[in-house]
Parts: sequence; C-alpha cells; structure tokens
Amino acid sequence: MIQMAIMGFGTIGSGVYDVVNTNRDVIRKNLGGEELDVKYVLDLREFPGKPVEKVLVHDVNTIMEDPEVKIVVETMGGVEPAFTFVSRALKAGKSVATSNKELVAKKGVELMELAKENHASFLFGASVGGGIPIIRPLVRCLTADRIEEVAGILNGTTNYILTKMDQEGTSFEAALKEAQDNGFAEKNPEADVEGYDAGRKIAILSSLVLGKSVNFEDIYTEGISAITATDFKYARALGWSIKLVASGKIVDGKVYAMVAPHLVKPEHPLYAVNDVFNAVMVHGNMVDDVMFYGRGAGSHATASAVMADVVEEAANLGKTLPVSWSAEHQEVAPVASSEKQFLVRVKGGAERETVLAQAFGEGQLVQAEGVTGEIAYLTPVMTEEAFGKAAETVEDVIGRIRVK
Amino acid sequence: MIQMAIMGFGTIGSGVYDVVNTNRDVIRKNLGGEELDVKYVLDLREFPGKPVEKVLVHDVNTIMEDPEVKIVVETMGGVEPAFTFVSRALKAGKSVATSNKELVAKKGVELMELAKENHASFLFGASVGGGIPIIRPLVRCLTADRIEEVAGILNGTTNYILTKMDQEGTSFEAALKEAQDNGFAEKNPEADVEGYDAGRKIAILSSLVLGKSVNFEDIYTEGISAITATDFKYARALGWSIKLVASGKIVDGKVYAMVAPHLVKPEHPLYAVNDVFNAVMVHGNMVDDVMFYGRGAGSHATASAVMADVVEEAANLGKTLPVSWSAEHQEVAPVASSEKQFLVRVKGGAERETVLAQAFGEGQLVQAEGVTGEIAYLTPVMTEEAFGKAAETVEDVIGRIRVK
Repeated sequence: MIQMAIMGFGTIGSGVYDVVNTNRDVIRKNLGGEELDVKYVLDLREFPGKPVEKVLVHDVNTIMEDPEVKIVVETMGGVEPAFTFVSRALKAGKSVATSNKELVAKKGVELMELAKENHASFLFGASVGGGIPIIRPLVRCLTADRIEEVAGILNGTTNYILTKMDQEGTSFEAALKEAQDNGFAEKNPEADVEGYDAGRKIAILSSLVLGKSVNFEDIYTEGISAITATDFKYARALGWSIKLVASGKIVDGKVYAMVAPHLVKPEHPLYAVNDVFNAVMVHGNMVDDVMFYGRGAGSHATASAVMADVVEEAANLGKTLPVSWSAEHQEVAPVASSEKQFLVRVKGGAERETVLAQAFGEGQLVQAEGVTGEIAYLTPVMTEEAFGKAAETVEDVIGRIRVK
Repeated sequence: MIQMAIMGFGTIGSGVYDVVNTNRDVIRKNLGGEELDVKYVLDLREFPGKPVEKVLVHDVNTIMEDPEVKIVVETMGGVEPAFTFVSRALKAGKSVATSNKELVAKKGVELMELAKENHASFLFGASVGGGIPIIRPLVRCLTADRIEEVAGILNGTTNYILTKMDQEGTSFEAALKEAQDNGFAEKNPEADVEGYDAGRKIAILSSLVLGKSVNFEDIYTEGISAITATDFKYARALGWSIKLVASGKIVDGKVYAMVAPHLVKPEHPLYAVNDVFNAVMVHGNMVDDVMFYGRGAGSHATASAVMADVVEEAANLGKTLPVSWSAEHQEVAPVASSEKQFLVRVKGGAERETVLAQAFGEGQLVQAEGVTGEIAYLTPVMTEEAFGKAAETVEDVIGRIRVK
C-alpha cells in the first residue's frame, strides 16, 4: 500500500480524490498490483457528510510529519503557501505532483533541485494542457528529434470566446459574458484574456524543450480583448480563423516566444481546435508536425494527468524522475526581430493598395463582406520591427493581426 | 558507445540511418552523454558510393554474432524472414525496435515472450501511426484512466483518397489513381483500400489497451472501395464527412472492434484529420477524449518513432520494457450486436419516408443537392443485426454508411 495526500480540495483536488477511488483497480494494475490510497486531504473548509470527511485534515504538519505519506498532490493553486508546503514535502523525501502552473513557472527550478537533493520527484504534467498528455510525450517520446517549435492553444477560456466570435459573429464582450455565465471564464478574466495563463504554460514547455529557464516575464504577451467581429469578417474572407497561439521556437539558434492572437489557416493542425479544447503542436526536425489534443481543463481531465504523475512517482519511489530544466537563464530574442506575415487594417478602400504596397512590400488586398469604410492588406513576411516602422508611414491604420 | 544494426535499408530503414546521423547530438543528450552508432546495415542490395556502404552487410550472421550490437532495428517488413531474424536477435539478448505492423499483429506475443526470457526489449512504437507518439502515451501516460475506446484514422492512403473525394467531388477510382500517381498508394492497393492495414493497427492498439491478444482476423473490416461521390453529397448535405475509422471499444464488458467507413460529425476530433495525416482518439473514463495527430507514414517521421524506441532501449539495456500483452485470447463481440446510427440510401423520393420510418424507426430524411432518383434516411441508433433485418424489408436499398 502506497499512501498519498492531497493538498487543496477544490475543483482539481476533488477530481484527484475521485480518480483514485473510481479507478482503484486500473491504478493497481498499472502499479503491478500495489494499492494506492489517499490518507489525508488538506483543506481549510469542512465537508460534512461527504466521504472525504474521513481523511480531511486542517493542519499541514499532519501530512509532513507522517512518514507513511510518500506522495503529495498539490492542487491549491497560487505561489504561496503552495511553494512552502511543496518545499517541505520534498525536503521530507516525499514526491510531489502538481497542477499549479504559476508555481511551476515561478518556482519550478528550485523545486526540481529540492527534489533531486532529496531523492524525490517533482512532476507537473497537469500544469500545461490539463488532461492532455503533453509533457511526458515531449520529454520521453520525441527523444530522437530536434524540437524546433512548440505552438499551442493553451487556454480554454480564450479559445471558447474566439470560437463563439467566429461561429456566431458576436463581439468580444458578448462572448466573454457568455463564457462567464457558462462557468468557462472567471469574474476577473484578466489572466486568461490577456494571455498571462498561456504565457506561463508556454514558458514551461519552452523550458522543458530547451533545458534552460525561460522566464514568462520575458515572453511577449498580447491578449484577445482587442479582437473584434470585424477581424473575424476578414478571417472569414480569407477562409482562416483567429486563435490565441502561444509559441516558442528556435530559429538560427535564437529562441522566440510569444502569446498573441494569430490568423490560422485551415491546413494548420490548430485550425480545427475549437471551444474549450486545447492542443499543442510540436514540430521536430524528423517527425515533422505532431499534435496532442484534448480537454485543457476540467476537474477529472486535469486530475487524470495529476494521477498519471502520481502513478509514475509511486513506481519510482526513492528516485528522481528526470523531468526538469536547469537554472541557467535562457534568453528570449526580442520580438522586434521575429518574422511574420501581418494582416493590417486601414481606413479607406481599394485605392489604398499602392500606398500599402509601397509601405509593406508586395502583398494582397483583402476585402470582407459586410465591412465598409476600411480595407485590409496581407503583408509579405517581415520582421515585427520592419512592420512597425512601415506602419508608422501609413495613415489611418486601424489595427493588425499576425498570421501563423 | 552503444552499437546498433538496421535490418532492411528501404524507406524506413534509410530514414533510421538518417535520424541517427542527423540528430547524433540530440540522441546523445537524451542518453545522458552516451553515444549511439550504427555498426551494420543489412540489405541484399549494394549502395555504391553512398555513405551507408561502409557499414553494409549481406549476411545476417554478422549482426547476430557480434556481441557489440546491443540493439537491432527491423525495417524489412513482412512476416518472414523478419520473424526469424528478430527471434534470433532477441535470443542473443539484443533488444529490437520494429516498424513492422504485420510482424507485431501476427507474431507480437511470441516476440514479447522471447524478449522477456532474454532480458531484452521488443518495442514497436512505429507500427501504428508512423511518427505519432501513440503507443507510449497510451501505455505510460493514461495510467490512471480506464480506456473505454480507441478510434483512429490509421491509414494515410485511404484518408488521402477520401479527402480528395470530399474536397474535389471525384470518384473513388479517380482519387485512387491520383494517390497512386503521387506515390501515396501502391500499385496493388488492396491492403490499404480494403482496410486490412488499419485492421492490423487497431488489433495492436486494442491488444495493448486490453492486455490480451486481439486477432486482427476477428475484426470486422470494410474498405472504402464502395464509397461513391454520391455518398459524399449526402455527407455534405449533413455537414459531415466520411472517414475510414478503425475502432476498438468496451461496452458493458464486451469488446467491439471494426474498420469501416463512417460519417463523422464536425464536433468529432477525427473530422478535421485530412490528407495523409493519421490520428488516434483515445477515450478515458476520466480524461474524456484526447487525440494524437501527425504523419502516419513517411521515411523520417516513422524513423523518428523507431529511434525513440531505440533510445529507450539503449537507456534500459539488460531490462525488458513492459510494453506488451498476454497470449490470452480476447474475444471480439459479433458485429451484429454493435449499436450504431446508419444512413441508408434508397431509390425514390420523399414519399418513401413512411416506409422507412416503419422499417427503421423514427429517423430523418436526407436530401442532397445534385442527387436525383434516390433519397437517404438517417436511422435511430440500432444494432447492426436490427438494421440488417429492417433493411431486408425495404425495397430498392442502394447502400448504407455507419455514423460515428
């Protein structure tokens, strides 16, 4: 019998508790006959009458001081007190599995070091992409490939909003309201809508691929709050869609990372990823594009990923599983030098083509049904810097979207 | 230095050779600094002037009798002599990685047993889905889930043909011809077109999930050669597509497995998988649907998967990696008891609705643009047996397609 504890009985923590109890036999089989059980659940609240009551504790010391507890699941969220608790668990030689992307993005390296020092593991498969197996395949499966790009739809809330805007022609505000009403967006949606959540996740994936620390503060992040129904009309005219794409890539030895809305073409694997679904596309120099797709959030889906980590830790007690990156800082190249195509919207009509071609180089005029008084222009591939300078020379620019 | 040998220098074997040489540094890093090299390549042909010449051998004994060779890659295809060679390698304590689905579907259990007896590994990650990491995620990542269904587009040739038919309205024959001209279909396309290739692959995936041997001969297999441009017109009228779906699922403890063309709705993850791409959807009772997508064939993509197996074997020499199923036979439930919706095409017009509703139960009449003299009817969910019996009572049935 291997005993575990769950810290935080919210959406994900209660999901973990459910998975352990519902799939007891599957887990036992995958552990070669060894039973896994939850000895404690830590939460400040009471849950009178619920099964969890039997194992509920309010004092973290109960968990830390019990040598029978070999694995601790952290599903509290936020950096503190999660960091303090996880550190203590690792120092006590307990392995930890977490779904907390903030913790991993901010304190991951320290915790990986602590795990190593104490012959324990620190796994965080559920911190990116919810239930989608992505971290393990990236680290364990594509081992003969040079990973050149990771690009994903890593935030379900914004993808839900963009899908609504695309399919129903609604405004950003109306789609956000609907997402909030349906429980897909928080009251304060800033972390999702402004791309911070996706930024933390792409920082984690980039760090894993590169083996060095990519700080999420270094990643250029642009949210979706400026995307309008008119943008989608242009997308439709082109047969494309608009997605919040988080990407990290290596070009000529330089690392580029960005979170921003992008026009996505139908032939790109991310094009068909709709609603609250997440997907991560990985490009290897041999395997080409592979994509992992699934529910990026939700109680049981995320808990499934947490428990996959727990099962691996349970099978490897006393060892440190090598899912980590070094403390060495990975520089991110300035966005200005990143190369893209852009769709730029300007006031006026087709008569502006000459001016636009002069400013941006030879491109394509885009007219959209139901849009008047303005026109769009698809530029050639150029650096962000060159685009910015060119755009300054053009009058009446309304906005621009990058093209994936 | 760990030495390996490649048996068969065809499309995939030469890809493996390329991957080892191109990504030498990546592989060394993933092996913790240990170098991996190709000591021998076995092929009957000569390759004068090519780099491979230096390591080319024509006699399999050179490989088998060299104790320095720790890992053997089998990329010859077919059951013999592959089976004899792989058996010899395993008996000599060498680990084997193969891309040969025929060998795995037919002789997998024997080879897994041999590997275990000789403290070696037999891995076959490239035998299903080419470069897509699917076997390892299925076995190693979804370890806390009860897998209830695996459904995939597992054959690139048929998916290419169906995509052409869908997008260009061409006939099956014309699309097949184009696939052959472009090198996506073989001169004798039977194994692909009749679904046998997909059947072997779903037998492998089902065996892995169930831990018992599913014989591909027990799997009901229907190819795409009877699919017509008219079928696609009905699909378009419904907003759906037609895909050759290979699936294995567990319902009430019974195992169902089938390869057949299915109408697929846009909300299904397989809907957007086009051209030569493959994808495998896995449904777990906790994680819900996850999907793995990528190139199901091709020299470097498939070689990437072979080499991921080799890297894992190299890191675990002297051990048997537990990717296997038992010799115990897994019964497949008769197709007759499988439940589905059907689209049935009959001669006539809307006046046939009453007859169709009487025969099949309450359903939906489907008229398609450009189709005259016939009409289609979407049945309620019913068993294959009930459908068959009902169809016998109806005059002038033209055909039917299952709905996923």
